[in-house]
Amino acid sequence: MNPTSALVVIGNEILSGRTQDANIRYLAVHLGRIGAPLREVRVIPDIAETIVTTVTEMKARYDQVFTTGGIGPTHDDITSACIAEAFGVPLELHAGTVALMEAHYGKDEFSPARQRMAMLPRGATPITNAKSVAPGFSIGNVHVMAGVPSIMQAMFESVEPRLKHGESVESRTWYALNLYESVIAAPLEAVQKRWPDLDVGSYPFHRDDGRRGLALVVKGTDHRELAAAARAVRDLIAAAGAEPVEGEPPV
Amino acid sequence: MNPTSALVVIGNEILSGRTQDANIRYLAVHLGRIGAPLREVRVIPDIAETIVTTVTEMKARYDQVFTTGGIGPTHDDITSACIAEAFGVPLELHAGTVALMEAHYGKDEFSPARQRMAMLPRGATPITNAKSVAPGFSIGNVHVMAGVPSIMQAMFESVEPRLKHGESVESRTWYALNLYESVIAAPLEAVQKRWPDLDVGSYPFHRDDGRRGLALVVKGTDHRELAAAARAVRDLIAAAGAEPVEGEPPV
Repeated sequence: MNPTSALVVIGNEILSGRTQDANIRYLAVHLGRIGAPLREVRVIPDIAETIVTTVTEMKARYDQVFTTGGIGPTHDDITSACIAEAFGVPLELHAGTVALMEAHYGKDEFSPARQRMAMLPRGATPITNAKSVAPGFSIGNVHVMAGVPSIMQAMFESVEPRLKHGESVESRTWYALNLYESVIAAPLEAVQKRWPDLDVGSYPFHRDDGRRGLALVVKGTDHRELAAAARAVRDLIAAAGAEPVEGEPPV
Repeated sequence: MNPTSALVVIGNEILSGRTQDANIRYLAVHLGRIGAPLREVRVIPDIAETIVTTVTEMKARYDQVFTTGGIGPTHDDITSACIAEAFGVPLELHAGTVALMEAHYGKDEFSPARQRMAMLPRGATPITNAKSVAPGFSIGNVHVMAGVPSIMQAMFESVEPRLKHGESVESRTWYALNLYESVIAAPLEAVQKRWPDLDVGSYPFHRDDGRRGLALVVKGTDHRELAAAARAVRDLIAAAGAEPVEGEPPV
């Protein structure tokens, strides 16, 4: 069994619609690649009680939990304090991080607001990274990262070697224009039943230019089963009178 | 107090990273506009028990709950059955929807797979819409919509008049290039403390072209307070030696 991952997006800016989230998809793709697929995402507001409750629940339920957002220096950045509370440990200045940040900013510019970013829950391991001197951190099975996508990605690359890995989840996709789900529902269900360990999905698309059709996707960790199921999907598209196109949507 | 909204995104395709979600932001913006702001989003897989448990929890906790995804005709479309289970009612053919779909497809083309899309929980009200003859539906405080963004949006427009409305949440945003959060953390916190009913946030941006800076956002329902707090934010940016630019990011 592959290890499971979950993501807690801490951010009023996603819930207000100010910002289009870009972190969910990035983590979904990369966690699938390392074989620790994303099983649940929660987007929650910057409210301390909500963050503590959600992280407490998720870290018990999933093998590893990621959070994004709320680790900057402003008053609405309360993630680190909440994670400390969820683990029942104090939030304190982390000596190694203080040293790195003092060296980076100079002692005079290492203001109280910046010192906030050197406060980690006791026992946490910093996630140093190529993009920001202020680190993320890992504690227990929780990995705390920035909300800005470029910094989050740098933190993920940095923490990846110490994450739980499993068998990479691969997928094969066939596209078909002008094919309706109702036409292939029965044969597609037969594919799912024949390969119960794979995940067989049907995703309609409607493009702005008026083209529409289906993406039929098989996913799993067994290459031989994947190849066989992909052939079955190709055949059922052809049997329905449409042209199966692999990989990219036929636009 | 404004009514609260929550969203359950039902979709393996989001959790696998195959699809970039577009529905969260759309609903966030439009629910803010009608004064029923989005308070939580959960993205969950197409697993019946997970859907039933999540919807049961969310409909008790929030004034209204939206779901997207899983109402098509294929085997992985299990949302309607799960919503029926969450409300303890049978899933059954909905006479009005059968009539509409038969008229649309013709009796011969109204296949068993298509009939699946005419099955609604007993007591549900269809969400007819301009994009698809197969409807979404409302039951209790839960509104069930398609996952394809263009159809979801048509369903939201259709259901909007019967949603719970409140006072519209407005926001004012000031952008500043080359300003660091640590520099304005203290005066920004003072703005939040002075107007506790507003939501004052700081969002760093790092553009691909190397430009970086901050978006400082005040949000709330009281126009007079919003205007006063926006002036205070403009002034604190100027006091930090940066140029405040309202509205759109200075690119």
